[in-house]
Amino acid sequence: MANGTPDRPPARRPGGRNARVRAQILAATVELVARDGIAGFRYEEVAEFAGVHKTSVYRNWPDREELVVEALLRYAEDLASIADTGDIHRDLADFLLALAGGLETPFGRTLEQALQPARQSPAVQAALGRILDQRVAAMRRRVDAAVHRGELPPVDSSFLGEMISGPVHLIVNRGVRPFTRADAERIVGVVLAGLRATTPSA
Amino acid sequence: MANGTPDRPPARRPGGRNARVRAQILAATVELVARDGIAGFRYEEVAEFAGVHKTSVYRNWPDREELVVEALLRYAEDLASIADTGDIHRDLADFLLALAGGLETPFGRTLEQALQPARQSPAVQAALGRILDQRVAAMRRRVDAAVHRGELPPVDSSFLGEMISGPVHLIVNRGVRPFTRADAERIVGVVLAGLRATTPSA
Repeated sequence: MANGTPDRPPARRPGGRNARVRAQILAATVELVARDGIAGFRYEEVAEFAGVHKTSVYRNWPDREELVVEALLRYAEDLASIADTGDIHRDLADFLLALAGGLETPFGRTLEQALQPARQSPAVQAALGRILDQRVAAMRRRVDAAVHRGELPPVDSSFLGEMISGPVHLIVNRGVRPFTRADAERIVGVVLAGLRATTPSA
Repeated sequence: MANGTPDRPPARRPGGRNARVRAQILAATVELVARDGIAGFRYEEVAEFAGVHKTSVYRNWPDREELVVEALLRYAEDLASIADTGDIHRDLADFLLALAGGLETPFGRTLEQALQPARQSPAVQAALGRILDQRVAAMRRRVDAAVHRGELPPVDSSFLGEMISGPVHLIVNRGVRPFTRADAERIVGVVLAGLRATTPSA
């Protein structure tokens, strides 16, 4: 949580063949979990999609749940990042556009379904909890920086995150219309104006 | 859309035995669709849950899809209503609390899952579209009344609906914490203040 700590964990070592194989397997797992659900995907198909031998999947992930958890975590990293250009309005609008784009992918849809935590095993619940925590922490760092610079009054960043992300989930999940930059700008504009009007500037 | 039109369609005639049987069947269908999904529920179990003979289900709804659609529409009516006490803040906060309560029921969860329209048949998609339209229309009537009385600037009621409902869906679906009246008040407060600050008062 120290200032200047990057949002992401350290990059994985760009190791040789096994690192490539593992990455291919994780990518295939994400696709298949999106298609068949956490309980439904099959190792045979993961191997086929990844273009590797089935024994490579079993050797790297003897435990099915660990495979799911690692795939979820790896692919969720990108969705959690929020840039800091010094302009909180712009950075939050960009974040909402990236969030909407992420929710429209097969993986994003999976995550939305999976985020009904009661249905999941404890290991998957824990992974989902970590994904959520990463997002909340990224939001807090970005909002704290804006408060520190006087761009915002001292707002509750987790509430701010819910206020701007909620409408994005609703619009994308309904699928009635595409989510646009104008939507992102308008949502951020109303929420920041509302928070400025209702938060004492302590 | 004329002023004074009530939110609901005319009440069904409180007819005799068959009306009661039909109501029991629809209630059982909602429960079972919530448990087993639109594709998974079985007529035998609907009859058992409803405490009626299987032939009653087949006779009233020879078409499985019509049964689902009628059950969805009937149970969605209650979720769409918004009171008009003359205080827009209070009425919207009450609406959000009712929405959260509805989303937490088995039927609400079903509707959330079902609202991924791409997965549904055209008949079910059309029913979901009607449910959504009812909610949007109820919101428009209530917001228009507030604008007319000068409580609000001329805002886009459909955007207002997304802004206040989105966070409710997010909080309830995540299930990390209960949705409270304080949440409802805070959401409505920020959105109304934000809209007042950003909407020209025409």
